[in-house]
Amino acid sequence: LVKAWEPQLAQYPVMGIADDEFATAKKLITKQEVRAVTLAKLRLQDDLVMWDIGAGSGSVSIEASNLMPNGRLFALERNPQYVTFLRENLKKFVARNVVLVEAFAPEGLDELPDPDRVFIGGSGGMLEEIIEAVDRRLKPEGVIVLNAVTLDTLTKAVEFLEDHGYLVEVACVNVAKTRGLTEYKMFEAQNPVYIISAWKGEE
Amino acid sequence: LVKAWEPQLAQYPVMGIADDEFATAKKLITKQEVRAVTLAKLRLQDDLVMWDIGAGSGSVSIEASNLMPNGRLFALERNPQYVTFLRENLKKFVARNVVLVEAFAPEGLDELPDPDRVFIGGSGGMLEEIIEAVDRRLKPEGVIVLNAVTLDTLTKAVEFLEDHGYLVEVACVNVAKTRGLTEYKMFEAQNPVYIISAWKGEE
Amino acid sequence: LVKAWEPQLAQYPVMGIADDEFATAKKLITKQEVRAVTLAKLRLQDDLVMWDIGAGSGSVSIEASNLMPNGRLFALERNPQYVTFLRENLKKFVARNVVLVEAFAPEGLDELPDPDRVFIGGSGGMLEEIIEAVDRRLKPEGVIVLNAVTLDTLTKAVEFLEDHGYLVEVACVNVAKTRGLTEYKMFEAQNPVYIISAWKGEE
Amino acid sequence: LVKAWEPQLAQYPVMGIADDEFATAKKLITKQEVRAVTLAKLRLQDDLVMWDIGAGSGSVSIEASNLMPNGRLFALERNPQYVTFLRENLKKFVARNVVLVEAFAPEGLDELPDPDRVFIGGSGGMLEEIIEAVDRRLKPEGVIVLNAVTLDTLTKAVEFLEDHGYLVEVACVNVAKTRGLTEYKMFEAQNPVYIISAWKGEE
Repeated sequence: LVKAWEPQLAQYPVMGIADDEFATAKKLITKQEVRAVTLAKLRLQDDLVMWDIGAGSGSVSIEASNLMPNGRLFALERNPQYVTFLRENLKKFVARNVVLVEAFAPEGLDELPDPDRVFIGGSGGMLEEIIEAVDRRLKPEGVIVLNAVTLDTLTKAVEFLEDHGYLVEVACVNVAKTRGLTEYKMFEAQNPVYIISAWKGEE
Repeated sequence: LVKAWEPQLAQYPVMGIADDEFATAKKLITKQEVRAVTLAKLRLQDDLVMWDIGAGSGSVSIEASNLMPNGRLFALERNPQYVTFLRENLKKFVARNVVLVEAFAPEGLDELPDPDRVFIGGSGGMLEEIIEAVDRRLKPEGVIVLNAVTLDTLTKAVEFLEDHGYLVEVACVNVAKTRGLTEYKMFEAQNPVYIISAWKGEE
Repeated sequence: LVKAWEPQLAQYPVMGIADDEFATAKKLITKQEVRAVTLAKLRLQDDLVMWDIGAGSGSVSIEASNLMPNGRLFALERNPQYVTFLRENLKKFVARNVVLVEAFAPEGLDELPDPDRVFIGGSGGMLEEIIEAVDRRLKPEGVIVLNAVTLDTLTKAVEFLEDHGYLVEVACVNVAKTRGLTEYKMFEAQNPVYIISAWKGEE
Repeated sequence: LVKAWEPQLAQYPVMGIADDEFATAKKLITKQEVRAVTLAKLRLQDDLVMWDIGAGSGSVSIEASNLMPNGRLFALERNPQYVTFLRENLKKFVARNVVLVEAFAPEGLDELPDPDRVFIGGSGGMLEEIIEAVDRRLKPEGVIVLNAVTLDTLTKAVEFLEDHGYLVEVACVNVAKTRGLTEYKMFEAQNPVYIISAWKGEE
């Protein structure tokens, strides 16, 4: 089943969906450019199991599902407003292989199959517990990706991941885009995002 | 035909392939993070025609072909060394729907089907001629993406594209990554890349 | 006369004055960090003549005057609201060697002594005329610094300066600062500023 | 005594001295742009006492001394090669109010007068001890500035400073400059520097 054949999807790209196509709250969404780098860091393959913890409006899960048509994705979110956005977006983009799990991680993880990939977009103050829970379940060749926008999360995530034996790479992504399509093109900066990738074994 | 079933591909992701997996000359390759944003800006869909002008080692074409298993890609390159890299990489990553065109653009474009997407990674001093040739052939809903690393290319590309009636967005992407996976994580900057997206019609 | 002895100045640094110490309109001011780099690029010496064209709230002139106690500075501004801010700031920071010139450059430049340094913070759509006027008057070892926040100004400034025989360096400065002094330190990006430096002669 | 009157100084600016004017080892120096922001964050006033810990080639001390002709600066460095550079640079730039202290901090601090400002450019693995020693001596309105280029130093510095009751601001500075003064202006990135400022009391 090739998703692009669905008439209502004809207008959306596999990845690079415009931010304003998603139902979302302001500042909640992982922006198009950072989402693209996040997906690259997740090293997705066609038939993997992925957990998306703190899925927000679901933009990462939706594009990841496009990249893994035979994958199984689990999007955890408990904020009721975000759940509404998520549900709406999953429907709009026909993301059939994404299962919405209304739970506050690390709760809700026990029932899921072991993941090959884990994306942590939000931790609700439970970062250490989430990393512990993920570490117990992640498959041997697995990859964890975590996006931090505060110094505190950056610091703690790297510390917790290294404490659990992971090798860690941090990529700080700064994007500035021109606003205005006509004469005056002012560069507007997005806030930097620290994309943390973690895995076990050799470099 | 799902490419991921091929045994030799089991280890490579759909996108986010590590830079050092590609046969390439130093500094030639579009780096993993910028490649991801470039692919997002190309707004790829499953069955499009894409031209990759100045394809270099082919990393953009190869990942684009993974995102468009039913697409048709044409990678133009004439530097003999790069052609060798490109050929090697197309084989390694089993990019069956990428056709290597050994030509110095805008030469070689006449024989190709009209494109939905055009990526210009290098112009060999023929930027204006290339943009003119692309403009004559690009389909109505088409998108052009061009990566500039010099002020001159940035300036001229925006000018030429606007002269031909395109709406233009420029995204400046700055990435700094930690080097060293053990105790000391020094942030090393990549040079900034200006990713220029152009299309006709409304914003 | 050492300015720091004035009681009311005891609390202000020579440079690095906090942005909110200046009377200003939102988004008008050259921010502390970019101002510092701008001053460095101006290569100030104690007894030079400097023109500050499009002086806005005067923050660059005021810190430059601190660095050149024997210099003579001329701050051109014609927007009435900005003139009010400028006047207030010059008084607050006791910038005695800054002369406010209420004129719309290039008007008003004829009466001024030839400059060693010129800072162009705003051009009011008269960039080419201003660069021409400055070029006729700049002393042989002189330096021009221009801050651009739009692609258009960046492009045109470099073109005009090179057309007039200048060597040009562009420094793109991206700053992200933590907001919040307590537990959660979120990085907030400032929009990038292109600091253009121009001079004649050898590299 | 106005330093700029010295004939041999006629060619150097008060701040913004070109990096290659300093005797230094490759990669040792705080680059011109970051040095400017560092000086701004130090909030220098004319007659302060400043410690420069891990002074390296002395570029920060030398420009700080230009900004504080009546200040007293103490540059601590023990690496013999750097001490040679430092001595040479202090002489070249006639930095009479900078005292070179050949010591491995926190050693050597006991003999110095209490500081108003402390710049920590390098810590030789003794960051916690240095911050403790500085904290015991810093005057009530004092400011500490620390430049970090690794995630580890960033993390530890913020932690130690907050543990000692400081309010902390982090500014991440990314600079990309055009190289080549003629036709092709390629943007080359400098590695990001995290400039950490700390002080006690209110925001």
